[in-house]
Amino acid sequence: MNYNEKALEMHKKNNGKIEIKSKIKVKNREDLSIAYTPGVAQPCREIHKNKEEAYKYTAKSKMIAVISNGSAVLGLGDIGAYAAIPVMEGKSVLFKEFAGVDAFPICIKSRDTEEIINTVKNIEPMFGGINLEDIKAPECFEIEERLKKELDIPVFHDDQHGTAVVALAAIINSLKVAEKSIEDIEVVINGAGSAGIAITKLLNNAGVKNIIICDRKGIISKNRKDLNKSKKEITTITNKKDEDGSLIKALKGRDVFIGVSGPNVLNKEMVKSMNEKSIILALANPDPEIDPDEAKEAGALVVGTGRSDYPNQVNNVLAFPGIFKGALEVMATDINEEMKIAAAYAIAESVSEEKLSKDFILPDPFDKKYVKKVVDNVKKAAIKTKVNRI
Amino acid sequence: MNYNEKALEMHKKNNGKIEIKSKIKVKNREDLSIAYTPGVAQPCREIHKNKEEAYKYTAKSKMIAVISNGSAVLGLGDIGAYAAIPVMEGKSVLFKEFAGVDAFPICIKSRDTEEIINTVKNIEPMFGGINLEDIKAPECFEIEERLKKELDIPVFHDDQHGTAVVALAAIINSLKVAEKSIEDIEVVINGAGSAGIAITKLLNNAGVKNIIICDRKGIISKNRKDLNKSKKEITTITNKKDEDGSLIKALKGRDVFIGVSGPNVLNKEMVKSMNEKSIILALANPDPEIDPDEAKEAGALVVGTGRSDYPNQVNNVLAFPGIFKGALEVMATDINEEMKIAAAYAIAESVSEEKLSKDFILPDPFDKKYVKKVVDNVKKAAIKTKVNRI
Repeated sequence: MNYNEKALEMHKKNNGKIEIKSKIKVKNREDLSIAYTPGVAQPCREIHKNKEEAYKYTAKSKMIAVISNGSAVLGLGDIGAYAAIPVMEGKSVLFKEFAGVDAFPICIKSRDTEEIINTVKNIEPMFGGINLEDIKAPECFEIEERLKKELDIPVFHDDQHGTAVVALAAIINSLKVAEKSIEDIEVVINGAGSAGIAITKLLNNAGVKNIIICDRKGIISKNRKDLNKSKKEITTITNKKDEDGSLIKALKGRDVFIGVSGPNVLNKEMVKSMNEKSIILALANPDPEIDPDEAKEAGALVVGTGRSDYPNQVNNVLAFPGIFKGALEVMATDINEEMKIAAAYAIAESVSEEKLSKDFILPDPFDKKYVKKVVDNVKKAAIKTKVNRI
Repeated sequence: MNYNEKALEMHKKNNGKIEIKSKIKVKNREDLSIAYTPGVAQPCREIHKNKEEAYKYTAKSKMIAVISNGSAVLGLGDIGAYAAIPVMEGKSVLFKEFAGVDAFPICIKSRDTEEIINTVKNIEPMFGGINLEDIKAPECFEIEERLKKELDIPVFHDDQHGTAVVALAAIINSLKVAEKSIEDIEVVINGAGSAGIAITKLLNNAGVKNIIICDRKGIISKNRKDLNKSKKEITTITNKKDEDGSLIKALKGRDVFIGVSGPNVLNKEMVKSMNEKSIILALANPDPEIDPDEAKEAGALVVGTGRSDYPNQVNNVLAFPGIFKGALEVMATDINEEMKIAAAYAIAESVSEEKLSKDFILPDPFDKKYVKKVVDNVKKAAIKTKVNRI
């Protein structure tokens, strides 16, 4: 039985993957009087006096909303809010299983940016954080940006920032193996959708000085007339030598390739044209930009993909559960770049020196010791940047 | 320690009362491949082909949204969306503990009727039913009516219909004790807010022929010029003799008083003016319309209140968990009057002949045998009225 059949059977047997659990028992009138009327009025009164008391007396303190409109789901594309439910429930399961974070799926039946923003703002009271998921670009940028501004709880688009954090972690450790320094490397990112843009910004903030980002038409430069808003913005931090041309040209003499694009856009010749001890993160799913074995044959030192059947899986699950857990624990108002960088270093540093090698640059997701390190690092960064409330 | 202090302590200790539980474990890559990518894509595809498959493969099949904007919470009034969370979490707990129904609190930070309607419509995909709670009149009427029309899942305003169902159950059994018939009784309802209007409609649909409803100004009749929309509508099924005057006048020679108003609007003289073997449901909370002992001294045969420290507590918890469970089990598109009446009879009939007495007209909420009967009756009524989808 393959994964598709097993998944159908499991989802059907359980009627989905999540349920609501009561933390308390209601067995008699006394229980009822404390959990519900008349006793419940007292926490209500305290929160009415100061809304932040909701973190003390309600599940808000541990509850994330996993929000999608199903417009860009996994490899499935635009399948809508109903068909997105299994993925969002899956995300809830990962939040709980990996970091003990409660996460509830909210699948929004709308394609209108303003309406999605309003809906999330309206339902915010119950939640301590917002995880945006599988919302297509460019709407996802506006939705995230506006919600970050207009809400006082953290908002995090995992397809952008989760991917970026784990990619950064992979780069940090790959550089140890390659004995190169983050300030010196030249990086080419292929794919200028939400993940590509977020990776570019995070690498830049983490100290990478030379980044070139390409889309289907090649290098994104100020000279191009066909750029959307996010691509135009990204030219201010990339392509310092103002190069133009193809991905092939971009790669020559570079140290790192990060693909968030599609299958087979990279070939052996292109890898050969890169610097020695090159690092390839071919993250297109399910089929990477280049077959990892081919990349190695062509001379790449470290190759990572999004797949679990090759070494060095760049998997968001290493990041988002711990990041939100850390944010919730300090009642953070934001998940900012410093917190993301701190999370990436926590993930990277969770690989012991003995284990670290070109085929082991990231922790095993199921060896969950790294989660606590992510939580701690994120909390420290939140406090340092003063987005904490406790 | 009183209930207020106990409630504060309990809510603080647990950080609220609900959490998300994963129905499955994710301990290794195989688990991950079935719960999440790549396997999860298969249930997504099935739902994309037919959205009703969401009932098969997701938690929608068992999940209710408990929706409030905190504008009319318990005895607390307009405390807003944040301060309403403990009550809505309490409701979730009751759904789960009494009927195994998963219910998630959605506290909406808006007072605009259209915006509330849109928000609920937008987040509907994840839910198999909508329980509206503690939304003030008259907005609650428009919100419920519109959502019932515009969504294909059941929408039920518990403050209206939960109260009405349990009040009807109380009347059904009180009439057995009083040896009167539902067609013959004359009923006076005091309070023309959401609960009063809903009780009036349900009793009318259940066969009560003579109902008078009063507000603060007395009997609601066609002659009055000061009636809002819902009060105007209710004159078409009430006050057949077109009476005018005070509650005092309304009560003379009547069989049943149902109060959903405020403390002390009923006195001994008024009870004495009623028919023999009168039935009093004084449901104002926490202080009923008349002290139960006084009502009995004045000749009432059966007295019920909303309080747990007197006999005959009219408690919504007898109704809503089983009603939603029944609706979910047949994938109902609506909770209609027939289903509510069926639920009321199930509750009433759960009191055995031996136990039934003037001081025991409703089941003990914690003796949960009645829940299954409610579920079964509601399912049968849904099938009979063709609002079922399985």
